[in-house]
Amino acid sequence: MTNPYDTLAALGIALPPVSTPAAAYLPYVQAGSLVFLSGHISKQDGKPWVGQLGNGMSLEQGQAAARSVGIDLIGTLQVAAGGDLRRVKRIVKLMGLVNSTADFTDQHLVINGCSLLLAEVFGPEVGAHARSAFGAVQIPLGACVEIEMVAELNA
Amino acid sequence: MTNPYDTLAALGIALPPVSTPAAAYLPYVQAGSLVFLSGHISKQDGKPWVGQLGNGMSLEQGQAAARSVGIDLIGTLQVAAGGDLRRVKRIVKLMGLVNSTADFTDQHLVINGCSLLLAEVFGPEVGAHARSAFGAVQIPLGACVEIEMVAELNA
Amino acid sequence: MTNPYDTLAALGIALPPVSTPAAAYLPYVQAGSLVFLSGHISKQDGKPWVGQLGNGMSLEQGQAAARSVGIDLIGTLQVAAGGDLRRVKRIVKLMGLVNSTADFTDQHLVINGCSLLLAEVFGPEVGAHARSAFGAVQIPLGACVEIEMVAELNA
Repeated sequence: MTNPYDTLAALGIALPPVSTPAAAYLPYVQAGSLVFLSGHISKQDGKPWVGQLGNGMSLEQGQAAARSVGIDLIGTLQVAAGGDLRRVKRIVKLMGLVNSTADFTDQHLVINGCSLLLAEVFGPEVGAHARSAFGAVQIPLGACVEIEMVAELNA
Repeated sequence: MTNPYDTLAALGIALPPVSTPAAAYLPYVQAGSLVFLSGHISKQDGKPWVGQLGNGMSLEQGQAAARSVGIDLIGTLQVAAGGDLRRVKRIVKLMGLVNSTADFTDQHLVINGCSLLLAEVFGPEVGAHARSAFGAVQIPLGACVEIEMVAELNA
Repeated sequence: MTNPYDTLAALGIALPPVSTPAAAYLPYVQAGSLVFLSGHISKQDGKPWVGQLGNGMSLEQGQAAARSVGIDLIGTLQVAAGGDLRRVKRIVKLMGLVNSTADFTDQHLVINGCSLLLAEVFGPEVGAHARSAFGAVQIPLGACVEIEMVAELNA
């Protein structure tokens, strides 16, 4: 099994504190062995990472934004797992929204920025997941990417 | 524990009958202890509450629409819980869609109309939930808001 | 109980092999008795079924695309169920995205193309499901429809 703390260290990633939701909800809720993480928006320097794919933002920038959301999701997941990411049994599913013009059709490549990070940090047995990716006409605070997660925890 | 019937009465809310889905699906399906509620669209006087945020509809109107969806979701949840909302263990997650122009970035504030109602009716221990909110380019029947819910029931 | 293989044969439907995801994720992940299927995009002759409702694509074409996604989802579900669709206890929930202009408001009728197929193949006791349908400003590879599924398997 891959130790997520080893890969995070190898990647030079320090997990952020869980950010306060922008509205009247919680960062995550657990039901049975499943934990449902709220949609996390892309941030840069602590502020919403604003932009739209197909309108002046490159694929590479979108992937970097999705990767940054992945880091924030892992940070929230660590809290949901009682402080120990080794309790994560499986990343189950992502829903990845990309702030898109009607002309942009590479939402799946954008969200790969998060998916590849998860597979790397947790190893493919735990980190590979089901997923939907699509274009949203707009995302709260103008963020370019928003991703929610379902994960399974060991008892 | 908050008794949801006490808070509904204090708020003067009478739960509506479960509305017939607009298409070939069910209002909810239970799997194990989780109940998955279909996306409920905003209604006013029994008809779709039509409109778009960013195009002639105010934030306050959007929040009122989201609150009305919350009332309909609670009505469906009561049926799913065998007629007794006190069997609801937890509101787990919402997905909140806001019919939005590309310029509107306050989807999270719109969906608060539903989230705040749920926390009030069920109390924060049961009613506070995970959530995603984002903009949809359009919603069935032109509705301004659509919200789906996952909830956990006691056995 | 309806035998799904009987109805598939009666409908003349041959299940396709599970298609390789277009990106860094898996076609499905199981957690407990729930299986989460990734968003499947509409395909025609093995290529993305490109188009937008409200912009030169008819409702009937959209419904046919949604039905084709349903066939692909059943194919993936068969693999997830260890090769035997009779292990499917319940189709729990669909999320149906329709590539839409801002003027198109019949997303629910489009997604019926998938919902009606599922109820027919599995029978209503197993096949009828909860659902959300809404408009996406764009879908990966320009596909006109994308649908994800949650299903429950017997042990």
